[in-house]
Amino acid sequence: MRFVPAATLAGMSEKAAPTTTPDASRRSDRSRRAIYESALALVSETGYAKLTIEAIAARAGVGKQTIYRWWPSKGDVVLEAFLDLVQRSAVPPEAGQGASALPDTGDLAADLKLVLRATVDELNEPSYAGPARALAAEGILNPQLGARFLEQALAPGLRLYATRLATARENGEIRAETDVAIATDLLVAPLTYRWLLGTGPLDHTYADALVDQVLGGLRKG
Amino acid sequence: MRFVPAATLAGMSEKAAPTTTPDASRRSDRSRRAIYESALALVSETGYAKLTIEAIAARAGVGKQTIYRWWPSKGDVVLEAFLDLVQRSAVPPEAGQGASALPDTGDLAADLKLVLRATVDELNEPSYAGPARALAAEGILNPQLGARFLEQALAPGLRLYATRLATARENGEIRAETDVAIATDLLVAPLTYRWLLGTGPLDHTYADALVDQVLGGLRKG
Repeated sequence: MRFVPAATLAGMSEKAAPTTTPDASRRSDRSRRAIYESALALVSETGYAKLTIEAIAARAGVGKQTIYRWWPSKGDVVLEAFLDLVQRSAVPPEAGQGASALPDTGDLAADLKLVLRATVDELNEPSYAGPARALAAEGILNPQLGARFLEQALAPGLRLYATRLATARENGEIRAETDVAIATDLLVAPLTYRWLLGTGPLDHTYADALVDQVLGGLRKG
Repeated sequence: MRFVPAATLAGMSEKAAPTTTPDASRRSDRSRRAIYESALALVSETGYAKLTIEAIAARAGVGKQTIYRWWPSKGDVVLEAFLDLVQRSAVPPEAGQGASALPDTGDLAADLKLVLRATVDELNEPSYAGPARALAAEGILNPQLGARFLEQALAPGLRLYATRLATARENGEIRAETDVAIATDLLVAPLTYRWLLGTGPLDHTYADALVDQVLGGLRKG
């Protein structure tokens, strides 16, 4: 799924940026970027459990105190690096409406296909899939990280689906009795399932067929 | 989901049971049972990555050569222990029809609710959830284990859904154009998603509402 809309993260990026002199700020930006990249590369390569602050610092070419000055723990730096990655890649221009809502052209099927196709592309992109799978796997075993991954990375995107579906329900495009939380699950869970467990192909054809089947239902009309 | 029907595993249990004298066979059965229980308890407690054959042997009170005599690797013993667990717990008597098919009373909604409610109970059972989550998480990171987990633990159960849905399609209960692979995803992926990522409650009410929404569709008729 689209894990996180960019707008949700604006506050975080600002908070992380040190505000001192212009030169110091440029140096800090470079360091922070290098730390993000190291954290994402290493979590992909070694998994979350074996990742250390020392290894991130060494690969980024900074002292480990630089990392501890900005982030209290390994979980904080990895999650922030991941959210930064999502922010930079999440919203394709054609999705429209900025980053705080799913597209709403009045055609629910077309809007959902646009979003699910973009999500398929994201899930199939190795630079995204590596750290995302590492965090999802660790979150399954480590309840504290799992709760933070859910709250920071998954929940904001899920709320956008619920909002778009609630609008469609108000407009009479979908049934009045639709449970938008379940409808959201029907759209995002099958993509995640195929992506995490490898049960079948994950491509645009699948995204389109999924939307049609969820909207139309299985039962013969 | 119902990961595996018991019938699928009959061959495996037979193969694993040594056939020597009655006394030796009883001793072997006890050892194998102890090894299964140790493997499942340890994979829940420590995760798959940190599990060792030595630790399984020590906890089971057997020599590690006993394990190596029957199983070539850690993956083999853990997967077989997990499949044995599923075999012993998978099919509630009221599901009927033995273990090689989903129930088929002619009422698709009722049959699916019965199966999904049983699956919810299974996913919420700690003795099942511990090793199942550990294997799912490791399978996300370790492609070789992931492929075996899919083939041995997930795929047989998914084929039962596809078969039941294909019957409903032939009987005209669901649309002729239904893609049974996608329809299977719509039923099992939301349960798995909530179970692995903790996005919402996983109970009988959810199972029932999911079936109704998948069959009826979202679009206003």
